[in-house]
Amino acid sequence: MIGTLKAYLRINTDLSESEIETVAIFFKPKAFNRGTILLSQGEVCKDLYFLSRGCIRTYYLTKQGHEKTRYIAFNGSVVTAISSFISQLPSFEFVDVLEKSEVYVISHKDFYQLMCALPAWGSFYRRLLEMAYLYQNKKIEDLVTLSAKERYDKLLREWPVYIQRVSNKILASYLNIREESLSRIKSK
Amino acid sequence: MIGTLKAYLRINTDLSESEIETVAIFFKPKAFNRGTILLSQGEVCKDLYFLSRGCIRTYYLTKQGHEKTRYIAFNGSVVTAISSFISQLPSFEFVDVLEKSEVYVISHKDFYQLMCALPAWGSFYRRLLEMAYLYQNKKIEDLVTLSAKERYDKLLREWPVYIQRVSNKILASYLNIREESLSRIKSK
Repeated sequence: MIGTLKAYLRINTDLSESEIETVAIFFKPKAFNRGTILLSQGEVCKDLYFLSRGCIRTYYLTKQGHEKTRYIAFNGSVVTAISSFISQLPSFEFVDVLEKSEVYVISHKDFYQLMCALPAWGSFYRRLLEMAYLYQNKKIEDLVTLSAKERYDKLLREWPVYIQRVSNKILASYLNIREESLSRIKSK
Repeated sequence: MIGTLKAYLRINTDLSESEIETVAIFFKPKAFNRGTILLSQGEVCKDLYFLSRGCIRTYYLTKQGHEKTRYIAFNGSVVTAISSFISQLPSFEFVDVLEKSEVYVISHKDFYQLMCALPAWGSFYRRLLEMAYLYQNKKIEDLVTLSAKERYDKLLREWPVYIQRVSNKILASYLNIREESLSRIKSK
């Protein structure tokens, strides 16, 4: 399945073919069962995952103990607890596995060393950060400008995979809606 | 006051002295009075500001018309409507001037062209994005884990300048507290 990683790098970076071969060496294959916790709150995030198959999410807990899902990654995307990965300080977020997953993992150390060696890797990381920032801000924007139903409808329109593959409980925590309200919206 | 910009670049980038001279040419000096709106919601953000003196903020409006302040920049820092600056799509945020300010402005076009020419400029932008992401996430984390009073106390401890220089109305919108609650907290 290293082919999916290389295909991702071909599409999302300006790395040459030989650079892609170099980069791919630093990604180690791993497989996880559903329910595996890859990172707990308070741990330092040392890994970034390319998800070749499966579903992984990041979430945090409110003071009242409610889960808030920040991000859900599906096949062919990249996921990590970004804040802790950047700062190398204890994570506020958890990272857990929602479906049996196959991933390629790169360590924080290797990721940053590649940046010194390959300018195109630095550009790729910059692009990842830009996307993460836009994603985060879009979520805040939607939260303050759209109703619960409008947020659900938008997700259904733009990313139906969320609704097909994610449980109601987690979907509700992603959309910042109570689970009962989500069930009501879905049934309409 | 170009000296303050150069000093900022010396501290926050790996640019050489001659590269700093090159970069500084692309920053144009401007001065704004208090109350100037630098960007309105719906406009595309074409500029990034280095603030050599004064105070500038970014904010957005909720559906109910309430202001939410995302970020407040003081002397010696950089400010823009980051999402729109990255995406070059209409901004969700406003940018306005809270105190008479002197700035150095660089255009989006020049900013990105410098990245192609100077690797250290690319690294600097990456660092800015990392900081913006961490800042954003820290705000969310504080919002869900700290009480209104705890958020105020933390700001007073870490960034007393906010409390000294920003009006109660804007401070409340920054801390996500009602203005009356902020007055109550402050009076204790």
